[in-house]
Amino acid sequence: MIDREEFEGVVRDLVPSAGQGIEVLSIGDGAARLKLPYRPDMMRPGGTISGPAQFGLADVTLYGCVLSRLGRVDLAVTTSMTINFLRRPAPAALVAEGRLLKLGKRLAYGEVLLFSEGGEEPVAHATGSYSIPPA
Amino acid sequence: MIDREEFEGVVRDLVPSAGQGIEVLSIGDGAARLKLPYRPDMMRPGGTISGPAQFGLADVTLYGCVLSRLGRVDLAVTTSMTINFLRRPAPAALVAEGRLLKLGKRLAYGEVLLFSEGGEEPVAHATGSYSIPPA
Amino acid sequence: MIDREEFEGVVRDLVPSAGQGIEVLSIGDGAARLKLPYRPDMMRPGGTISGPAQFGLADVTLYGCVLSRLGRVDLAVTTSMTINFLRRPAPAALVAEGRLLKLGKRLAYGEVLLFSEGGEEPVAHATGSYSIPPA
Amino acid sequence: MIDREEFEGVVRDLVPSAGQGIEVLSIGDGAARLKLPYRPDMMRPGGTISGPAQFGLADVTLYGCVLSRLGRVDLAVTTSMTINFLRRPAPAALVAEGRLLKLGKRLAYGEVLLFSEGGEEPVAHATGSYSIPPA
Repeated sequence: MIDREEFEGVVRDLVPSAGQGIEVLSIGDGAARLKLPYRPDMMRPGGTISGPAQFGLADVTLYGCVLSRLGRVDLAVTTSMTINFLRRPAPAALVAEGRLLKLGKRLAYGEVLLFSEGGEEPVAHATGSYSIPPA
Repeated sequence: MIDREEFEGVVRDLVPSAGQGIEVLSIGDGAARLKLPYRPDMMRPGGTISGPAQFGLADVTLYGCVLSRLGRVDLAVTTSMTINFLRRPAPAALVAEGRLLKLGKRLAYGEVLLFSEGGEEPVAHATGSYSIPPA
Repeated sequence: MIDREEFEGVVRDLVPSAGQGIEVLSIGDGAARLKLPYRPDMMRPGGTISGPAQFGLADVTLYGCVLSRLGRVDLAVTTSMTINFLRRPAPAALVAEGRLLKLGKRLAYGEVLLFSEGGEEPVAHATGSYSIPPA
Repeated sequence: MIDREEFEGVVRDLVPSAGQGIEVLSIGDGAARLKLPYRPDMMRPGGTISGPAQFGLADVTLYGCVLSRLGRVDLAVTTSMTINFLRRPAPAALVAEGRLLKLGKRLAYGEVLLFSEGGEEPVAHATGSYSIPPA
């Protein structure tokens, strides 16, 4: 319904500062993998990637999962998101792996795991829901 | 334990881009009110303030509530945050009103309501918990 | 839209074991107060009221908030609920105070504070959303 | 650290009404699978399994995931739980599949998917955290 390049365009429109350089690694079948390159100006004191930057990456990844099923639906909006911060991210790129757990007529719901690039243990876990506009 | 000016300094350190101009309206007794001035470059297409910007304001407001009780504790970290987006924010400043519901030895927990400046109905509601480092 | 007695009937239908004796203290204007009497068989080892019992009370209280605006809508269903357990409840009745933060066409959202009867500090805080059926 | 039979004993102690007949299908390595047999008296009007019953099953499943790593730790307590109800459960047994995403010194965090027995799509998804007592 939407391919990598088209979704990278959506990300550049949605996320301030030219999408912060987010790359779409894969998208399709209710799943998406995105990468946020490492940039020192994203760091909090202590050398960790800020919570809002992690939240923003999870949010746009879940949006990609929704668009992979629906195509480009500009009016789908996040209604809620829960994020748990599990480990201090390394000073490295973040990779987000999202998947839908439900796509209904009115609501979509899914989850995203965030990893430091090359790491095996998740640094954060997010779940969220999107409101789908009437057809 | 921490006053308005000292906490504004914390905010400038924590939040990228010089705190995005966040003002601390009041802080004390487990509560805090912060204001995020309106800036067109924070807007999403459709004229709304982005979810991550709302999340970031809620996060730093709750952190202020914690520091108002503990004083400056650099190692307190957000462990989880849930945000519900309730109404499309107006193209205006956002005001956040946070309060603690619990301050334990190991965990703090509180809630934040976000309003468009001058609005009566909340645009978002967030709850979150912080891990308190051992004394 | 619904009064105390009518909502107590709803509670008896919804909650197993004859509503566990839940009393509706007040209901109206998007708010509701309910009381779960103390019963030793609800207790967990250690003398605390079980998490699922607290969850169930919060759920039905929020449902009351919704019905106070909409009247009896049997098809409204809980779509999500987050509960934070803040303090060990006393071996006493629980009082729940709920209020709506949004009532939209498709989704309602609100929060509930739970107290041990006579206590001033909340033992738990819940937030939840309900899906409203098309009119 | 704990085997099926020992954890079934824990469940009978924790969950009212003799554990409601919950069976432990497997437990180990930070994961657990539990089954809640179908009982008509658990049903809500409309023929669905009540939210609190689903919540209770998810809670005890996540507790099993924690105990599978720590052994029997009576003082671990749920600090928060988020549950999203995705589909109306069939009038059938529920199977819960839980796994830990983090086990720290002070907090454990994991997720649980609930399925109607034999179903492929989850009926609910829960995430939760536990406070680990000092050793």
